[in-house]
Amino acid sequence: MSKSLIKPQTLKGFRDSLPGLAMAREELTAIAREVYRSYGFSPIDTPALEYSEILLGKGGDETDKQMFRFQDQGDRDVAMRFDLTIPFARFAAQHLNDIGTPFKRYHIAPVWRAEKPQRGRYREFIQCDFDTIGTDSNIADIETLLVIHDLITRIGFERFTIRVNHRQLLNGLLETLNLAEQSTGVLRALDKLPKIGRDNVLTELTSLPGVEEQQAAKVLAFAELSGSPSDVLNQVESLLNGNERGLEGVNRLRQLFDAVRTAGVADERVALDVSIARGLDYYTGTIYETFLDDLPDIGSVCSGGRYDNLADLFTSQPLPGVGASLGLDRLLAAMEELGRLDSTSTPASVLIVFFDESHSGDYLRMARQLRSEGIATEVYPQSRPLKKQLQYADRKGFRFALIAGSQEFAQGEWQLKDLSQGNQHQIPGDQLLPTLQELLSN
Amino acid sequence: MSKSLIKPQTLKGFRDSLPGLAMAREELTAIAREVYRSYGFSPIDTPALEYSEILLGKGGDETDKQMFRFQDQGDRDVAMRFDLTIPFARFAAQHLNDIGTPFKRYHIAPVWRAEKPQRGRYREFIQCDFDTIGTDSNIADIETLLVIHDLITRIGFERFTIRVNHRQLLNGLLETLNLAEQSTGVLRALDKLPKIGRDNVLTELTSLPGVEEQQAAKVLAFAELSGSPSDVLNQVESLLNGNERGLEGVNRLRQLFDAVRTAGVADERVALDVSIARGLDYYTGTIYETFLDDLPDIGSVCSGGRYDNLADLFTSQPLPGVGASLGLDRLLAAMEELGRLDSTSTPASVLIVFFDESHSGDYLRMARQLRSEGIATEVYPQSRPLKKQLQYADRKGFRFALIAGSQEFAQGEWQLKDLSQGNQHQIPGDQLLPTLQELLSN
Repeated sequence: MSKSLIKPQTLKGFRDSLPGLAMAREELTAIAREVYRSYGFSPIDTPALEYSEILLGKGGDETDKQMFRFQDQGDRDVAMRFDLTIPFARFAAQHLNDIGTPFKRYHIAPVWRAEKPQRGRYREFIQCDFDTIGTDSNIADIETLLVIHDLITRIGFERFTIRVNHRQLLNGLLETLNLAEQSTGVLRALDKLPKIGRDNVLTELTSLPGVEEQQAAKVLAFAELSGSPSDVLNQVESLLNGNERGLEGVNRLRQLFDAVRTAGVADERVALDVSIARGLDYYTGTIYETFLDDLPDIGSVCSGGRYDNLADLFTSQPLPGVGASLGLDRLLAAMEELGRLDSTSTPASVLIVFFDESHSGDYLRMARQLRSEGIATEVYPQSRPLKKQLQYADRKGFRFALIAGSQEFAQGEWQLKDLSQGNQHQIPGDQLLPTLQELLSN
Repeated sequence: MSKSLIKPQTLKGFRDSLPGLAMAREELTAIAREVYRSYGFSPIDTPALEYSEILLGKGGDETDKQMFRFQDQGDRDVAMRFDLTIPFARFAAQHLNDIGTPFKRYHIAPVWRAEKPQRGRYREFIQCDFDTIGTDSNIADIETLLVIHDLITRIGFERFTIRVNHRQLLNGLLETLNLAEQSTGVLRALDKLPKIGRDNVLTELTSLPGVEEQQAAKVLAFAELSGSPSDVLNQVESLLNGNERGLEGVNRLRQLFDAVRTAGVADERVALDVSIARGLDYYTGTIYETFLDDLPDIGSVCSGGRYDNLADLFTSQPLPGVGASLGLDRLLAAMEELGRLDSTSTPASVLIVFFDESHSGDYLRMARQLRSEGIATEVYPQSRPLKKQLQYADRKGFRFALIAGSQEFAQGEWQLKDLSQGNQHQIPGDQLLPTLQELLSN
């Protein structure tokens, strides 16, 4: 009987995660979860599908185009979420009485965007957000930075820099210079500083209506301030010429750098960078970006900031907050580039070779014993030539193979093959567990 | 400026997970992950969206109606996955050369079904599947049972029964009775035995074309066999009258019960139930259902079985396999009903009360010290009356509050309030960590 097969394929812009990638991603999300929880952030989840009206919010045409949007069976206009922020705003407004404030949550979940697929960018990816809402206290801003620090450290990077800024420094300066109304254009120009250089930015600034060369020069001088955080903050303070809004930002940053040091974070992990202005409109206070010192070009691996009001589309209750988002896929790419990703595709360390059908219960029992001591152990499921089973173990990346046939069972011994070293030892049954534990702890 | 708010609401049949539920679900999935991994199952992931053609497969109209299906921006006919089995079949066919066989995977991910919402059933839910494919060895069947056993035990249930059957016992009997062609109708009737009783099943059986009363009585006698697995298997063997297909099932089950006992599973956790026939067409060999002894009515919390060919829609390479699926939402409902769900909505044990602005760095530093010892600790983010902060701690379910103002800092001491006991102790700073560790280990 012949029949036609359906071609097995994923949609354009989507991909499967094979074991190697899926294991690495699970490890990262497990670390993120643990760090978030250690600070008292609680998990939440929201549906993948929402009313399109809710997801569209204020967003214009572009957002619309990136949404997977359709009519459901009940003729509702629905769409798949394209970020976790708008669903969180909806969630906070809807459950405000239950959750109370302050409220700290994390949310690790996939989002979908019908963007043009690019190298390394997919139409489905995991977001990994944490936020503290319902307070404008600077303590929450400081803690956000500590969380970012612990996240990147726990993932295994020692050399990274969290760049911090406060939106009100520049806003205050623009007020002082009477340029408050040009702020969007100024921000857009400054954002290009690393890419197009100071001369081009100066040209772009002076081409804005109502911006004189002298004002543009001051703005650029501000954006190029450098030095220790306290030095820069002192210089900013004098540039601000008493502007209240700007000085509030200066004071919050001073408190942040002091507290972060008191809390035990090394100075070189945190920098003040008055030029960063991420999320042109969204963030209103502190801003964070995180760069790996060895791979700065991949961009920020954890970004966030403070906002005045999370959920003003859905409730009249103001919900100020602060949070950030860990760039999981970017970090995975970085780890791959730095050779930090394992090539193993099994979570188990030990493969028990299946040799003698009549001892299948014994193989399974030994595996259970090892598991009960925390050693993940797989039993090869059928009798095949030893060479084939060892090839399987090699390909998957098991560290050890355990071999016993009728002779070994009669003698109460096991052959322990170290697959990375290539050597093999005869181990008495009662020594197997301590031997493996010692080898695995090295 | 007045503006109209968007009503914050979820779609019909969908729900948010607030922290209590999300924490419980995270704990269950963490356990499932750990158990799966301990057996050498690797994680995989597949996209939420697939070509409709792939998801529809052989499925008829009903499947279609339950799918969230639409045209994407590229006019592709796409749909959200409604289970993890068909995507796994597509995945296995597509990546066969990379993954090799045998291949053991788990997949924990949401699926979507546009079903009529019912109490406790939602249009979005998590599936939690594990499978071994590429081998028809009985070892994989036995291991599947061991995984189910470890899952339910590790989740915290001591009293449960894994009911096992093998599809070929009944098929063999039907062959012996010359009823092979009536098997679908016979299975359907037997499946109703617990609900409608033996007399009604007998009536239904004899109403099938070509089924005589004597044959129906034998089928029913078979389905009602009870006793120890070896007793029942002996009785089945004699009923089978030498039928080869049936005897193969008997032998596989004998090996399974022997090996499971050798591997150290208590006899009372495993039962032979020749009446179960889950998944009328899909399973071809061993079948598993798992019931909580204290809540049998909620149905099976972990079900699965062996199938001849996973991916015949997508590849001509035969991929026999065996696996099961943990019913997460059902287990959560069971845990709630048995009072096993915590009412806490924070993953942290300790709340540091925020008392004295000038010591904010010290609060943050103390919190970091506790975290580095594995004690999840939240710092209340702003100065508010002590009573308000303790109310917050109570509502969230923190176990301890730590209080220090300028006087305590001067004396190097902390007030430790046990929120479950209601008492409060003065603890010297250097005693805080060991005291907390001792209290938390109780």
